Amino acid sequence: MVQKLDDDARTALLTRFRDWTHDPTRDAITRRFTFDDFAQAFGFMTSVAIIAEKMDHHPEWSNVYNRVDILLTTHDADGLSERDAKLAEAIERLL
Amino acid sequence: MVQKLDDDARTALLTRFRDWTHDPTRDAITRRFTFDDFAQAFGFMTSVAIIAEKMDHHPEWSNVYNRVDILLTTHDADGLSERDAKLAEAIERLL
Repeated sequence: MVQKLDDDARTALLTRFRDWTHDPTRDAITRRFTFDDFAQAFGFMTSVAIIAEKMDHHPEWSNVYNRVDILLTTHDADGLSERDAKLAEAIERLL
Repeated sequence: MVQKLDDDARTALLTRFRDWTHDPTRDAITRRFTFDDFAQAFGFMTSVAIIAEKMDHHPEWSNVYNRVDILLTTHDADGLSERDAKLAEAIERLL
């Protein structure tokens, strides 16, 4: 079982990842990424997919042409966990 | 401008792609694909992405772990067109 973040840790995460939005209903963070075209958007998704698979922690995401919407939460924790912070950090590093 | 399907052509498309559901609000077809795991699901998405880019016709889609939801419609036609039939056919051929 993965530990859900406590309130202080959640605040720290949201302060750190200012470009992400907190979804309180899901206790998730979300972010939209916009690229020049589909090839760039899907290239980004491929990089994220490889990282996610390696971390064994996967995003919920959607893509429409040059746009990628990512939602991170931890099902096992029923909300945000340290895993989401790690995956968000890795995604940020790709940009 | 891409031609939107007329009623007969739309009926023919829906008859042909019985595993797809018609979304009348969007005039789109949708289908959920379920795989063993994320790697399989994303492998499928990668194949679809390459085909879509080659056809210059892209799906609206989302992925959660082993599940891929695809929606096909043609923005330029404001509904289903022959392009959606071609992409659906190519996706079916992957399975």
